[in-house]
Amino acid sequence: MNNMKKEAINIKDKFGKFSEQWSPKIIAQMNDYHFKLARVKGYFTWHDHKDTDEVFLVIKGELRIDFKDGSVTIREGEMFVVPKGVEHKPFAEKECKILIVEPAGTVNTGDAGGNQTTENNIWI
Amino acid sequence: MNNMKKEAINIKDKFGKFSEQWSPKIIAQMNDYHFKLARVKGYFTWHDHKDTDEVFLVIKGELRIDFKDGSVTIREGEMFVVPKGVEHKPFAEKECKILIVEPAGTVNTGDAGGNQTTENNIWI
Repeated sequence: MNNMKKEAINIKDKFGKFSEQWSPKIIAQMNDYHFKLARVKGYFTWHDHKDTDEVFLVIKGELRIDFKDGSVTIREGEMFVVPKGVEHKPFAEKECKILIVEPAGTVNTGDAGGNQTTENNIWI
Repeated sequence: MNNMKKEAINIKDKFGKFSEQWSPKIIAQMNDYHFKLARVKGYFTWHDHKDTDEVFLVIKGELRIDFKDGSVTIREGEMFVVPKGVEHKPFAEKECKILIVEPAGTVNTGDAGGNQTTENNIWI
């Protein structure tokens, strides 16, 4: 493993590399999982991920995730796991910076599609 | 999923629930992966994980990971992925708080064993 890059990944610096919202960027891979950063603001589309749980960790700001039967508010330094198959709709009143952990290849809108669907394989 | 607990996991609060060092505690599960918190200080044993990568994210303080051919320093807000099979030896001069992501059941010392091996299934 002499080619292993011995350099830490600085989350704040990585956020400086993009400004688009609702467009997760990959910063690391662990086995077949991706660690992605996203800037989010406003409402995202209702969707679920049939085959996987999804982790949201709030780096800066506040994220609300609405469910069909309630909601959860995730503040800076907090995380939440959305179980697979559970419909959810993220929302942020002000721009919020989040770290997402999910299997490589996961589409941001799940099977819901729509114009918020983005490329899911962009590394920064 | 009416039984889904709609409550964010506060990392700082979770650190308040234990004081032992080198003894990771589980705070969340995503598919078959665990998110664990650990307080670390001093040297850990040389070890590797034959079957899995391992993510370290520094929540507070500074962590150095030594490899056979170099080292990496991970500061607050930074993360690093140790590839599977790579021998590593974590070190922290002062107590450091870290978030670890790895498959459920991963033993902290890998196959190396020794007196730093701890229970790997304690939730907080």
